[in-house]
Amino acid sequence: MAQESSQVAPRYLTGDKAGLQEFLAKFDVFLFDCDGVLWSGDHLFPGTVETLELLRKNGKQVVFVTNNSTKSRADYRKKLEGLGIPSTVEEIFSSSYSSSIYISRILQLPENKRKVFVIGETGIEQELRSENVSFIGGTDAAYRRDVTPEDYKKIAAGDESIIDPEVGVVLVGLDFHINYLKIALAYQYIKRGAVFLATNIDSTLPSSGSLFPGAGSMSAPLIMMLNKEPIALGKPSQAMMDSIEGKFKFDRSRACMVGDRANTDIRFGLEGKLGGTLGVLTGVSSKEDFVSGDVRPHAYLDKLSDLLGSE
Amino acid sequence: MAQESSQVAPRYLTGDKAGLQEFLAKFDVFLFDCDGVLWSGDHLFPGTVETLELLRKNGKQVVFVTNNSTKSRADYRKKLEGLGIPSTVEEIFSSSYSSSIYISRILQLPENKRKVFVIGETGIEQELRSENVSFIGGTDAAYRRDVTPEDYKKIAAGDESIIDPEVGVVLVGLDFHINYLKIALAYQYIKRGAVFLATNIDSTLPSSGSLFPGAGSMSAPLIMMLNKEPIALGKPSQAMMDSIEGKFKFDRSRACMVGDRANTDIRFGLEGKLGGTLGVLTGVSSKEDFVSGDVRPHAYLDKLSDLLGSE
Repeated sequence: MAQESSQVAPRYLTGDKAGLQEFLAKFDVFLFDCDGVLWSGDHLFPGTVETLELLRKNGKQVVFVTNNSTKSRADYRKKLEGLGIPSTVEEIFSSSYSSSIYISRILQLPENKRKVFVIGETGIEQELRSENVSFIGGTDAAYRRDVTPEDYKKIAAGDESIIDPEVGVVLVGLDFHINYLKIALAYQYIKRGAVFLATNIDSTLPSSGSLFPGAGSMSAPLIMMLNKEPIALGKPSQAMMDSIEGKFKFDRSRACMVGDRANTDIRFGLEGKLGGTLGVLTGVSSKEDFVSGDVRPHAYLDKLSDLLGSE
Repeated sequence: MAQESSQVAPRYLTGDKAGLQEFLAKFDVFLFDCDGVLWSGDHLFPGTVETLELLRKNGKQVVFVTNNSTKSRADYRKKLEGLGIPSTVEEIFSSSYSSSIYISRILQLPENKRKVFVIGETGIEQELRSENVSFIGGTDAAYRRDVTPEDYKKIAAGDESIIDPEVGVVLVGLDFHINYLKIALAYQYIKRGAVFLATNIDSTLPSSGSLFPGAGSMSAPLIMMLNKEPIALGKPSQAMMDSIEGKFKFDRSRACMVGDRANTDIRFGLEGKLGGTLGVLTGVSSKEDFVSGDVRPHAYLDKLSDLLGSE
């Protein structure tokens, strides 16, 4: 995919006071990827809190953008607080929230097809509730069971004791209780016409220095069975950018995406035609990736707190 | 993929007594796909038993080839018997058996890496036992539980209380008890060097006139996480043909594959360079598929029992 800035070498701003001041002056809004930028796992990077303070002091709007679908915005605010980062729920944009907004405000569902079948955890449920979207599945214990011979017949026949005729959307996020029954039901709903949505399509979830199944892996069986991709609502999907813009009404040319991954965060900002993208070297992508990869940010720093060098 | 017979129109043999006699005389061995050929669901096609009798009476070797991995050969023989089809365990070739043979006789595993981590049901376990292959996972209730915060740390660290250092193979078949823990463990084993095998890669399982998640869907999250395909042991994989030949020592030029699906059964026979392939119109593929599709059998019939017209 062509990236506007891919031909230009990004500007290295660490230690460049004038360059930093010039860069910061261009933007009113900073969208932050979190893990790999503000912290790593449970380890807060030194200077994160001070950097956010500096931006806020200078009148910048700060938005935390996360693909984590298992947490609601309120849960995520608690996580930020636990790490010592002051924030408000309004500053947080999660893929569970983005999905809920997409369903309630963008999808035009017929009146009798507005229920969502959820594969996922409580974060999705909380955000659907916040948008008054009715749903089934999710953490409901009734779906945490083995499939029975009776299920096959009832599911195949569309028996209303197990197939809810009002379901018009299947939303798939990370579900630590994924099972055969949930996949079978999601498949049936989509075959019967439901819209196939995914909170995000990250195949893996980093934890404890290794990788575990991510939200994308929950969609994988359905993608294979249906030979069809879901509409994904997390980064780098522009559906998420549209939702963020819908909420914050910002001027894209005055907004900057900050992230550690060229292929998701930086691409998200570039494809969203934001005025700027800023890479940091405290996460996944390397200097090499940023300087000569396919997707290059407008500028990059060794670490986020190098922004403090603008003072 | 180029198919040898794809340029040639298949011969239609229904009602053609001389043609049928000529065709049958070419072969000593008939490999049968089952569902869609001998029966559909729980409904035995009229004439199936008599047709198999005719073949056996004429000295033909009959082999039942099934991708069903949840059943062992002994289980499958019971299924055949329940439908009224006489058979012996020796005539049955299932993907669970094929996988076990592949592991025990073809894979050259180091002595301390011979254990198999199984995602699947009892059929796989029975066949691994029949080949004296040791395994963990499968139907063991210890793996039918939620993942805990402790699990993440232990799995990531390769703690031997949960990661068995002797596992050198991950074998994925249809598992009605698939869960997050099993997927996470399978991923770790493969990342640590285990061979990634699948009993078969059928994405769906036909049942009650609809489709449900198949064995391929169990591998889908791993394929996405690893960006790597498994070695598949079921049709149309030639690993299965090699296993069948290893067991029956037949002359491929004197063998015929009979099936209802061009893309799996007929392809399986063509790529295996069997002397013949015979399509039947009682299952998935249509006359159109056989006559002008990409993968064409040497001959086709309206239904299997039309072979009785050779008498």
